[in-house]
Amino acid sequence: MNQFELEMAVSRLNLSYANCIDDDRLEEWPSLFGDPCFYGITTRDNVIQGMPGCIIYCDSQGMLKDRISALREANIYERQRYRHIVSMPVRVRLDGALVRSETSFAIYRTVRNSPTELFAAGCYRDELSLHSGGELKIARREVVCDSPVFDTLLAIPL
Amino acid sequence: MNQFELEMAVSRLNLSYANCIDDDRLEEWPSLFGDPCFYGITTRDNVIQGMPGCIIYCDSQGMLKDRISALREANIYERQRYRHIVSMPVRVRLDGALVRSETSFAIYRTVRNSPTELFAAGCYRDELSLHSGGELKIARREVVCDSPVFDTLLAIPL
Amino acid sequence: MNQFELEMAVSRLNLSYANCIDDDRLEEWPSLFGDPCFYGITTRDNVIQGMPGCIIYCDSQGMLKDRISALREANIYERQRYRHIVSMPVRVRLDGALVRSETSFAIYRTVRNSPTELFAAGCYRDELSLHSGGELKIARREVVCDSPVFDTLLAIPL
Repeated sequence: MNQFELEMAVSRLNLSYANCIDDDRLEEWPSLFGDPCFYGITTRDNVIQGMPGCIIYCDSQGMLKDRISALREANIYERQRYRHIVSMPVRVRLDGALVRSETSFAIYRTVRNSPTELFAAGCYRDELSLHSGGELKIARREVVCDSPVFDTLLAIPL
Repeated sequence: MNQFELEMAVSRLNLSYANCIDDDRLEEWPSLFGDPCFYGITTRDNVIQGMPGCIIYCDSQGMLKDRISALREANIYERQRYRHIVSMPVRVRLDGALVRSETSFAIYRTVRNSPTELFAAGCYRDELSLHSGGELKIARREVVCDSPVFDTLLAIPL
Repeated sequence: MNQFELEMAVSRLNLSYANCIDDDRLEEWPSLFGDPCFYGITTRDNVIQGMPGCIIYCDSQGMLKDRISALREANIYERQRYRHIVSMPVRVRLDGALVRSETSFAIYRTVRNSPTELFAAGCYRDELSLHSGGELKIARREVVCDSPVFDTLLAIPL
């Protein structure tokens, strides 16, 4: 793959990721990751200060699936949907069989019968594994939110 | 066209669509559609519940032109402009001479002398007809808004 | 470069531009411009009315660097970060050794310990110079903000 194709492939993965969350096909979400993997949510302040801790993290497909099961079964949170606007990826580079990239996002939330509101903005810092046929899986996704102010309930994946 | 080129062609149509609305070249907007065509605005709740009704719909270029004429002549709405941020398209697939795709959008509105505000987020669910030379026209665009809360006056196209 | 490659090259420049601002690598920002160059911030109303004046403008790399130095040294503004969401470029055309294009943006601002908020939306109207190896530099960037309502302190570049 040349650089154009690589950027388009990363973009396509990001769009599929956003689309399965926004369309509430959450059961597809773990399949976009490798196994083992890393999925963590942190803040820009944490990253700037070099603090490795995450507010939420998962390190296997099983943990990702557990998050979705819990969300489906508990179902105590107010009904809501996200809308991801993801930009094209930046700083995309192939490093062996791993693609490193960063992608800015804005997420809007619509709680039933209310106007849509901005929920979070930030960037994905990713390591993607390149498989045969050009398919990419998420080996590591760090979701870096710009604001440290969070809804207490991060039920739906960012 | 390969898959990359197809996605870029859909993206380009979406950007032209957004650009003619945002730049107030609304008279160009109907020419992006085929004739007959379908343009309808609905909500995510309607789509989830399988309700086919649309808040607004047009099924010919003539009806699209009428909307723009009415908007230009009546001109009773407060002066305002939109800014579309459209993502790259997702689920893009060629089905005969028809391209199916979905594209997430956020629309910001600026009413004269006020700060810019989020107006709507949602997705376009499209069927695009592929013409010779690779040109795409909108055969069907369903504008699915995330929130059921609308401004009473949807004057400018979404 | 064909049209696809040209659009991807413009997109890549826009993403690098956004990324160096959002990651606070502001010292890299002037290097994305040619020298001499033009960087100006204006409003949609000014553009519609054909008024050439800009709220802020720089016409050399030196002036761009001065802006960053002043921002770093004065440092009296409240700590804040931007997040740019830039769309793909539209109306991209090669005109001799100059690429003309327009790109819509939304900028979110996060002031320390506060939620992220929309700061500005608008579009970049650009003239980019095409150098050997396909590298693009900004010859002229007019930042057209949709709203005339501005924070008094436009410290960080838009």
